[in-house]
Amino acid sequence: MKRRFALIDMAYDPDPPRHRRQIEAALGRARSLDAGLALLPELVFHPYFCQTESPAPFAEAQVLDGERTDCLRQWARKYGIVIVTSLFERRLPGIFHNTAIVVEQDGSVAGIYRKMHIPDDPGYFEKYYFTPGDTGFCPIDCSAGRLGVLVCWDQWFPEAARLMSLAGADCLLYPTAIGWNPEDPSAVRSRELDAWITIQRAHAIANGCPVLVANRVGHEADPSGHSAGIRFWGHGFAAGPQGEYLLPPDSEQSSVRVVELEEDRTAAVRTHWPFLRDRRTDAYGGIIERTTRGIPPDLKKPKD
Amino acid sequence: MKRRFALIDMAYDPDPPRHRRQIEAALGRARSLDAGLALLPELVFHPYFCQTESPAPFAEAQVLDGERTDCLRQWARKYGIVIVTSLFERRLPGIFHNTAIVVEQDGSVAGIYRKMHIPDDPGYFEKYYFTPGDTGFCPIDCSAGRLGVLVCWDQWFPEAARLMSLAGADCLLYPTAIGWNPEDPSAVRSRELDAWITIQRAHAIANGCPVLVANRVGHEADPSGHSAGIRFWGHGFAAGPQGEYLLPPDSEQSSVRVVELEEDRTAAVRTHWPFLRDRRTDAYGGIIERTTRGIPPDLKKPKD
Repeated sequence: MKRRFALIDMAYDPDPPRHRRQIEAALGRARSLDAGLALLPELVFHPYFCQTESPAPFAEAQVLDGERTDCLRQWARKYGIVIVTSLFERRLPGIFHNTAIVVEQDGSVAGIYRKMHIPDDPGYFEKYYFTPGDTGFCPIDCSAGRLGVLVCWDQWFPEAARLMSLAGADCLLYPTAIGWNPEDPSAVRSRELDAWITIQRAHAIANGCPVLVANRVGHEADPSGHSAGIRFWGHGFAAGPQGEYLLPPDSEQSSVRVVELEEDRTAAVRTHWPFLRDRRTDAYGGIIERTTRGIPPDLKKPKD
Repeated sequence: MKRRFALIDMAYDPDPPRHRRQIEAALGRARSLDAGLALLPELVFHPYFCQTESPAPFAEAQVLDGERTDCLRQWARKYGIVIVTSLFERRLPGIFHNTAIVVEQDGSVAGIYRKMHIPDDPGYFEKYYFTPGDTGFCPIDCSAGRLGVLVCWDQWFPEAARLMSLAGADCLLYPTAIGWNPEDPSAVRSRELDAWITIQRAHAIANGCPVLVANRVGHEADPSGHSAGIRFWGHGFAAGPQGEYLLPPDSEQSSVRVVELEEDRTAAVRTHWPFLRDRRTDAYGGIIERTTRGIPPDLKKPKD
């Protein structure tokens, strides 16, 4: 199977019809580059509304089979391309998710993944909006392969990448919306970007499979006015199964770039570097604990 | 606590007394640089005998409280420095381990760790020599901190780093013996070295704690004559809790370099990037499986 995947780094345009035209243009560009799959950033239909906690954005959430999914279905069919992004899902009153979706070339939905790890730190108040996912880490089968689709904050968790791989994913995809605090000094910004790239390349290495990332770009103001907003850093990239760049991180500008994944390379690398063979599953029980350190013994003693 | 750790990249000298003098000189150099801990490469007393399978090296193994441990005790006391390396341990007839040891400044043994992940690939036939460890992933408390000591091949396993961190390790140390097949083209060699650095920096990032590595250097011939031997690649380094270099990888030459770990930085980084807070322990059960893919359903059907 020849697999050409497009990574689309793009900004949110506050004019919704124009924004949709821009997404569509990027998908058309991906198709013209002969891509069979297009990876869009996280929550591609929305501004990054999690910069502050406000009830207003909940009105924007849609059921899974909603109008935005219909839009993705139409694009997928029109351009004959698998589309991967995430949606703001309204599942039940009081239960909302950040839900990745894979739409097949024929417009059918190949599968979904509800973001399992939810961040909450200044600028990224996602725990207010998103109920942690309950899909577990299950790859999604489609015409482009068996996709390990994860979302943004998941990229900091080796467990997520590992579980997708153990479940048979043949590549890992991360639709993402991450950026800098524009007021941070450049040394801090470099360190953050470098860490983000490094840990995802490491998922490729640890699991012997390609990793692909598409990120948001551009500055978005903080609606609350309490911060300087977020400068989304772009720099999507593709790494091969030894962490080597197939498409290096490029810039913080919009881009549509295509990578061709080499057939059978994962199988070859996993034989050459047989990490999965040597996992000590008998000794990994502590992974399901918060910490394996117990209550300090001194705490149990009476205090004078 | 001010922590200055020395990373010692060094070669094996086939003249054993001279080799010991070289180790001692490196420890003296570390002490003169005001280090409180010295990290030596894996199996520092030995040539890398795992290049081929032969019963002869088993005669070199020693019980834990053997003459080599005595030698480490003397050096630790003489130079007032914690020493970390690994030994070829004879535990019981038929049970041998690659065992990391932490020797305290006063010559006492602070603790051991038996290498849990054992490689076996051309040039690294360790499964023949080393029984997989049974210590689990328990940090070792000593005057230099709560050390997450792992060994070489462990560095490819995010689970090992994670379990050490969850058990309270305040840094991860990897005594190592890894190198190139000298006949591999330079692109392959670069990719291997880069992957090795990247995945260990990622352990620092995922766990918000420093990672320190010391590696063997120099060429060692394959005793069987079947290969071109191993060119040990050196390039030991220290990364901080965001994966940033505290000491960048240097060269494939011998070196004694000292890094000072910043107090409380792990605590600060783990608050700033609260990955440990957000782990989905409820959904990580698959980590203790080989794979979560079952028997193919078609296999159960009768075949025409």
